[in-house]
Amino acid sequence: MPDYKAPVDDALFLLNDVFHFDRYGNLPGFADASPDIVEAILGEAAKLCEQSLAPLNMVGDAEGCTRHDDGRVTTPTGFRDAFRQVVDGGWIGLSVPAEFGGQGLPSTLTQAVNEFMCSANMAFAMYPGLTQGAIAALLAHGSDAIKRKYLPKMVTGEWTGTMNLTEPHCGTDLGLLRTKAAKQADGSYKITGTKIFISAGEHDLSSNIIHLVLARIEGAPAGTKGISLFVVPKIVVNDDGSLGGANGVSCGSLEHKMGIHGNATCVMNYDGATGWLVGDENRGLNAMFTMMNEARLGVGVQGLALSEVAYQNAARYAKERLQGRAISGVKYSDRPADPIIVHPDIRRTLMTIRAFNEAARALVLWTALRGDIAHRSGDAKERQSADDHMGLLTPVIKGVLTDRGFENAVMAQQVFGGHGYIVEHGMEQFVRDARIAQIYEGANGIQALDLVGRKIGKDGGRALMAFFNEVQGYIKEKSADEQMKGYVAPLGVSLGHLQQASMWFMQNAMTKPDNAGAGATDYLHLFGLVALGYMWCRIVEAAIVKLPEADGGPSRYSAKLVTARFFMERMLPETATRLARIEAGSASTMELADDAF
Amino acid sequence: MPDYKAPVDDALFLLNDVFHFDRYGNLPGFADASPDIVEAILGEAAKLCEQSLAPLNMVGDAEGCTRHDDGRVTTPTGFRDAFRQVVDGGWIGLSVPAEFGGQGLPSTLTQAVNEFMCSANMAFAMYPGLTQGAIAALLAHGSDAIKRKYLPKMVTGEWTGTMNLTEPHCGTDLGLLRTKAAKQADGSYKITGTKIFISAGEHDLSSNIIHLVLARIEGAPAGTKGISLFVVPKIVVNDDGSLGGANGVSCGSLEHKMGIHGNATCVMNYDGATGWLVGDENRGLNAMFTMMNEARLGVGVQGLALSEVAYQNAARYAKERLQGRAISGVKYSDRPADPIIVHPDIRRTLMTIRAFNEAARALVLWTALRGDIAHRSGDAKERQSADDHMGLLTPVIKGVLTDRGFENAVMAQQVFGGHGYIVEHGMEQFVRDARIAQIYEGANGIQALDLVGRKIGKDGGRALMAFFNEVQGYIKEKSADEQMKGYVAPLGVSLGHLQQASMWFMQNAMTKPDNAGAGATDYLHLFGLVALGYMWCRIVEAAIVKLPEADGGPSRYSAKLVTARFFMERMLPETATRLARIEAGSASTMELADDAF
Repeated sequence: MPDYKAPVDDALFLLNDVFHFDRYGNLPGFADASPDIVEAILGEAAKLCEQSLAPLNMVGDAEGCTRHDDGRVTTPTGFRDAFRQVVDGGWIGLSVPAEFGGQGLPSTLTQAVNEFMCSANMAFAMYPGLTQGAIAALLAHGSDAIKRKYLPKMVTGEWTGTMNLTEPHCGTDLGLLRTKAAKQADGSYKITGTKIFISAGEHDLSSNIIHLVLARIEGAPAGTKGISLFVVPKIVVNDDGSLGGANGVSCGSLEHKMGIHGNATCVMNYDGATGWLVGDENRGLNAMFTMMNEARLGVGVQGLALSEVAYQNAARYAKERLQGRAISGVKYSDRPADPIIVHPDIRRTLMTIRAFNEAARALVLWTALRGDIAHRSGDAKERQSADDHMGLLTPVIKGVLTDRGFENAVMAQQVFGGHGYIVEHGMEQFVRDARIAQIYEGANGIQALDLVGRKIGKDGGRALMAFFNEVQGYIKEKSADEQMKGYVAPLGVSLGHLQQASMWFMQNAMTKPDNAGAGATDYLHLFGLVALGYMWCRIVEAAIVKLPEADGGPSRYSAKLVTARFFMERMLPETATRLARIEAGSASTMELADDAF
Repeated sequence: MPDYKAPVDDALFLLNDVFHFDRYGNLPGFADASPDIVEAILGEAAKLCEQSLAPLNMVGDAEGCTRHDDGRVTTPTGFRDAFRQVVDGGWIGLSVPAEFGGQGLPSTLTQAVNEFMCSANMAFAMYPGLTQGAIAALLAHGSDAIKRKYLPKMVTGEWTGTMNLTEPHCGTDLGLLRTKAAKQADGSYKITGTKIFISAGEHDLSSNIIHLVLARIEGAPAGTKGISLFVVPKIVVNDDGSLGGANGVSCGSLEHKMGIHGNATCVMNYDGATGWLVGDENRGLNAMFTMMNEARLGVGVQGLALSEVAYQNAARYAKERLQGRAISGVKYSDRPADPIIVHPDIRRTLMTIRAFNEAARALVLWTALRGDIAHRSGDAKERQSADDHMGLLTPVIKGVLTDRGFENAVMAQQVFGGHGYIVEHGMEQFVRDARIAQIYEGANGIQALDLVGRKIGKDGGRALMAFFNEVQGYIKEKSADEQMKGYVAPLGVSLGHLQQASMWFMQNAMTKPDNAGAGATDYLHLFGLVALGYMWCRIVEAAIVKLPEADGGPSRYSAKLVTARFFMERMLPETATRLARIEAGSASTMELADDAF
């Protein structure tokens, strides 16, 4: 069975030494997040994840969820107890305002904890994770009455939440959605339609489930401008907060999926279910969009999380498995063969994953911190700048971290050879679980289009220019620094590739949008490489400061420098190929007739 | 359920127009393979694969194999009937010499047919495929008596075959193997030990199973020089050919795997089973190696096969699924939305897979043809040159075609969005099935090491130089050709990268072998890109000749030119990044201490 040890030390190093969390004490909630408190919180989260959630990961995969004839769904053995522990620990409401029962701590900490939870048990972590998402939506768009009615019990985990967007004929293109909402005399709506792929749509972990549902009010305009958001509880909640009767919503079936078997992916049937409008009529899609940054950041974290746990197990196996001898000469003469970690191709694999993980974790925390600033700062300009950053980096984090997270899980599986293909080692589950993160919450092709088609040109390119200025300024500042110049020089080359690609789109995609579409995925990954490279420079800078503490032997700080060098030498050069593909344009991509495929 | 249509036309175009199969009529068996016969054979194979094997693919995945308490193993519903059809069609012995009951046709045709079978049902195709492998081993190394005893019934499919190499503690490093062989007075051996990951080790498709087993004769040297090869039938075969008693070999359990559920992957227990030596004592590994080229070529074909069937289904879905509108303006105004094939990122995906498939098929057939020459030519120099080619290209085909085959199955799955993650569409099965081909028959890291550590320097680099000369000569010849120069020019750049990387190894890996190991996988893929690029030039050359026939409308020949351009513009530029990684050397890869991982 796979092991997992939460990378608490690395998260603390990033928060304290790289991003100087202590400098944000003026933001609401940050004063309570002193270094010792943060360390205690992450330590507790690690214990929960390592001891309670990780041991259930393979159980969840093997058992899956069960739908009974009466429509009830039961989760795998142990999930109820584990959920109780998550609830008792107050983890769902870690960053929810105190007035609704949360602890009001920075969202950055929630993202750090969510990485641990997803590493330990991604299918399980989706239950609290989706509830956090529904809470965020109601916080942003619900009326005071709705917030008072639903939020406190969702924050405690007594009730859980879901998001209902997809229908059989529409996923990406929500303008096609058909679920209907008929207004009633009392101001409520009757919701009718079928939703698919609803994660945690029905289960046995909570006494009520609060569904957030996109539907079209009768008479509303066609397309995306006629969609509204509704709250539809599984069991109607009376005005005094007590539970009323069952609502007209039920789970029609569970999907049989490639992975995340422990999570109930439901077909949900709404049969005149009573719902209440959230936000304004016909503005449902906007309501969804404003909370999408956090949700997509969370999915990016899933990619990182599976890459991390897969790495840990591959590294352990590579140190244990004896096979062959090092090509440079026997390394462990006391054993019948050397452990496979001596082989350069195995090390290349492990270093590739590791060089991603440590920079991706930085990218997540850096961006989550900007998210906190965007929501909590008293300075409008600072809020805007942070919000720009969130908007720009969100598709990059979602797309790049989940694509690489999956690839890394595959590479880690490969370290196990034939044993990696066998269920009992758990590596193939990581691959199957990681796969969904590339698909849901906007397939990665959509992330790429969001970046290229909306984000880089938004507000006259304000967010993109700010990002370029920050990275360019950093490179300039450090390029005379003897210890740093070896790291910032390759970053400068790749930043140049990104700038050139951006310019190419400006010159070639306005008149011919296919040029942007055909280069979008390459641009997304080019951007990701530059962002990860920038993170490596920031990490190196902090590690150099810490090095003297570690005198007298190899340390994790000197390992940071080696890993950063590996990233610069081995991974960053890919930006040249990405640029070449983008500049090839769309002609050969688009030339064939549709029926030639 | 997925569809499959065997690409008969493309295989015929490659055999007839690109590789001029008719020019080899002087080789044994080729005279019988006239164009009309080849067309008839591939047509029959297509019918079998499309109508009988493909419909069982999801059945096999869902049911898997069952081991009963008495050790018997039953295959999924329908597999017995389908196997009977394969046997009745004479498919197993297509290329086996007539004296053992085969048809003696070129092995190139067997590889073409095997692609179709693996696309239709990879788990099923392994049963006849492994039997073909065992036949090849006995043909090459068995005594006349052994050949006469076993081959005829294996060729008809009345008996099937297996390969038993791996043990729990050794896969790649066979020098560690422990299975023992004790010589008996009658010249036979008693075989004792445990083998794992034995595909088709036990099943209900044939009346006997002929196991080829690597074991160590008592007193033999330690390591790889003390390993011998034995034939161990499940049921002992009397000298008159009749079946005797059960032998001491049994299936201890079936592995639970990520994919290829329809194939029985067995733990095989040898408990004093009677075996007979094949070839010389202590030369078992050599015997295995001489037949490894064909086996590895066959696994490369699996990668292509799954990429092809995944492509076909993704293309169909992309033409059916309506979602969004083309960014360049509405394309299908009669429908509520455009089919997703109008979106550049979807086309990029489909073109990437297609540009691989068509060139990979060429690479397989080109190399299989060289295999036929190596085995059948009367000219020693021609045999040697063809054998050099096989040895050099085998790790490239195995490693590159299975790595890209898997990646392409993943990309094809992505076209389906959330539906790709659901079992019923069959796309996630292709991903799970394709994954094993990167692992077995020598994990791809081992293929890379074989290429870099053995093949490129072998015989003073003779094979490598011959490959360079052929491609270089072709580029030179065509670079003045107006119609060809746009294709050979980028190939020349990438060939330059490959030559530079080869030179870099010569200068930097002799004294420091880690430099070769750390760059091996990148070199493998760099080589693969050049080989595929060369195939595209050859395809284009033939397509240009055929173009006039297709006057008056778009044709599959003009589509070849577009797809070749896509390959040159979008895929081949990756060679630059591969070269940069290789030239980065091994320092950052190897620097960390083992316990830092």
